[in-house]
Amino acid sequence: MAENFIVIIAGGKGERFWPQSRAHRPKHLLPIVGDTPLLAQTLARVRPLVPVNNIFVITSAVQAKAVAAVCRPFKLPVANVVAEPVGRDTAPAVGLAAALVAARDPEGVFAVLPADHVIHDTQAYRADLRAAFAAAAGGEVFVTIGIKPHEPATGFGYVQRGAAWKSFARRKLFRVRRFVEKPSLAVARRYLAAGDFLWNAGMFVWGAPAVERALARHAPELHAGLAPVRAALVAGRALGPVLKKVYPKLAKISVDYALLEKADNVVVLPAAFDWDDVGAWPAVAKHFKPDAAGNVTCGRVLVEQGRRNLVFSAGGHLVTVVGADDLIVVHTPDATLVVPKARAQDIKALLKRVETETDGEKWL
Amino acid sequence: MAENFIVIIAGGKGERFWPQSRAHRPKHLLPIVGDTPLLAQTLARVRPLVPVNNIFVITSAVQAKAVAAVCRPFKLPVANVVAEPVGRDTAPAVGLAAALVAARDPEGVFAVLPADHVIHDTQAYRADLRAAFAAAAGGEVFVTIGIKPHEPATGFGYVQRGAAWKSFARRKLFRVRRFVEKPSLAVARRYLAAGDFLWNAGMFVWGAPAVERALARHAPELHAGLAPVRAALVAGRALGPVLKKVYPKLAKISVDYALLEKADNVVVLPAAFDWDDVGAWPAVAKHFKPDAAGNVTCGRVLVEQGRRNLVFSAGGHLVTVVGADDLIVVHTPDATLVVPKARAQDIKALLKRVETETDGEKWL
Repeated sequence: MAENFIVIIAGGKGERFWPQSRAHRPKHLLPIVGDTPLLAQTLARVRPLVPVNNIFVITSAVQAKAVAAVCRPFKLPVANVVAEPVGRDTAPAVGLAAALVAARDPEGVFAVLPADHVIHDTQAYRADLRAAFAAAAGGEVFVTIGIKPHEPATGFGYVQRGAAWKSFARRKLFRVRRFVEKPSLAVARRYLAAGDFLWNAGMFVWGAPAVERALARHAPELHAGLAPVRAALVAGRALGPVLKKVYPKLAKISVDYALLEKADNVVVLPAAFDWDDVGAWPAVAKHFKPDAAGNVTCGRVLVEQGRRNLVFSAGGHLVTVVGADDLIVVHTPDATLVVPKARAQDIKALLKRVETETDGEKWL
Repeated sequence: MAENFIVIIAGGKGERFWPQSRAHRPKHLLPIVGDTPLLAQTLARVRPLVPVNNIFVITSAVQAKAVAAVCRPFKLPVANVVAEPVGRDTAPAVGLAAALVAARDPEGVFAVLPADHVIHDTQAYRADLRAAFAAAAGGEVFVTIGIKPHEPATGFGYVQRGAAWKSFARRKLFRVRRFVEKPSLAVARRYLAAGDFLWNAGMFVWGAPAVERALARHAPELHAGLAPVRAALVAGRALGPVLKKVYPKLAKISVDYALLEKADNVVVLPAAFDWDDVGAWPAVAKHFKPDAAGNVTCGRVLVEQGRRNLVFSAGGHLVTVVGADDLIVVHTPDATLVVPKARAQDIKALLKRVETETDGEKWL
């Protein structure tokens, strides 16, 4: 019987959690919510699902060392943490994941899971993944896990479900009618009202040979580009030098575009677990217990006559907020951010200026 | 002819500029406006008026060392910096000042000047003080320097001027009809409209013997309490031990209440110079040149899509404000404050909580 694998994608620039997150310390390496880095929380969640040797983490060169440090207590083999020398979006990472899995078991089934989501209901999460593994085991379908939307979010792609397909472990799966990219607010509202749209959370379960066949068909350049990687893995050669040669030549392309939107065998499992991608600072607050005035604080903080603020301090520094509502204040040893919750998306514009107007390397 | 003296009162707790100001580092020791501490700016302003030996600074024990350090480049005699062992408001300080001056010249005339005001027109300031010295030289009157109000401030006492008295050096002085304490906003508006009210800025010029006589008459306990100080000064004994014995027994009393409201020989010189006591953070902004969006920044600061903010950073720390208007953000190495300009007066409530809820000593 085919083995199951987990491939955690631990990439991302983490700009939205600046100044806590930096290029070398993105969101999944931070305990944004909870006491450990989100990557460690993800590893703890998936560990009971497969043997530890069957867990891979794909990350970037600049984060590799920190990612390896988070993986160490989980006793992952060193070779299971693979660093992409340059970022090329998700399709090359999925191709690399398929190659890693196929080298271990040509019939292997694997889950692709982001490292930086917050999920509290671990039991339901594992049950859904077990059902998805069972569904994908035959190699017939690609399983995507869809999240039932509770608001007209414009920051995610959506999956429209079609007819019921099959059930596994009492979890119902549906055929996918279509994948749609991030919608406008008006369209997102229609999706929410329609009831048959789910958020595409970037979680997939599928067989390695099926993924490789699909890439060969729908993204032949990418598939061919990764041939030296497959050869190195089969020959047991070190992966680093090969990736360094191959990756810069690959085109940037998302797995949604390269594969899912084109495949006709995708099914969706509506998740039974809670899920939050914690997209930016305002989303952090809802995972903490606020004080009586609705303030969420972390570290040495005093809020006087203020409501619904989110205030983080590091290193014993005293951060005080007086007479202000709905502010985000994040202090780190070398940089501080003050932004109204409603303006958190403008951090991106700030970071462009940090890059051009300061000794950017130091702050990003 | 009687000699002229300057006595700078460098006390104050500096709570309103927290976290830059602390108990041991109040406003006059900070370069809140300008490149040097306000005390140094005051010393530089008065230096041409009298010999440096005739300049005294009265401060508090906790600030004495830092005050002495600011005075050093001005070459004040070490004994001219006198520390009150405990604060007893302004009347004891004026009594001490009179004793210091009288010990040097029994007919000495002295100006009492706060250390922490911002005055840009140094020439007009010196001209006014010279006129005030001339007016006070006879020992007939107490001269107070009044500031023409430009808003109905409730944070100052007022002086109502009466009939014209005399002119000195082409500066007109008026008899004082009355001193009034900090008014309500409604009353302050009436004062502003009336046109004959001036702000009491705590600047006085008067003869030492006249002050001592007036204290003996209007504040006999204080005058008697300071007798050992006068004796020590006349005998040339060290002042420290005497002050330590005498001061704790003195009652807290302001010079306005103990002396000026009761004396019938007070005249007022309406100031020809600009004046700002820079009472709190929002007042700081008007002494800086703002950027095109009205932001005033100091240190390593970036404001993105924000207007009229006042942002201070220390020690190379990067402070960023995104999408917020009219905020005060002050970062220091161990504490940060975020407060809307309109709420700056609530820092006092914050500091009470800092005292009770944290290891207060460290932060205050």
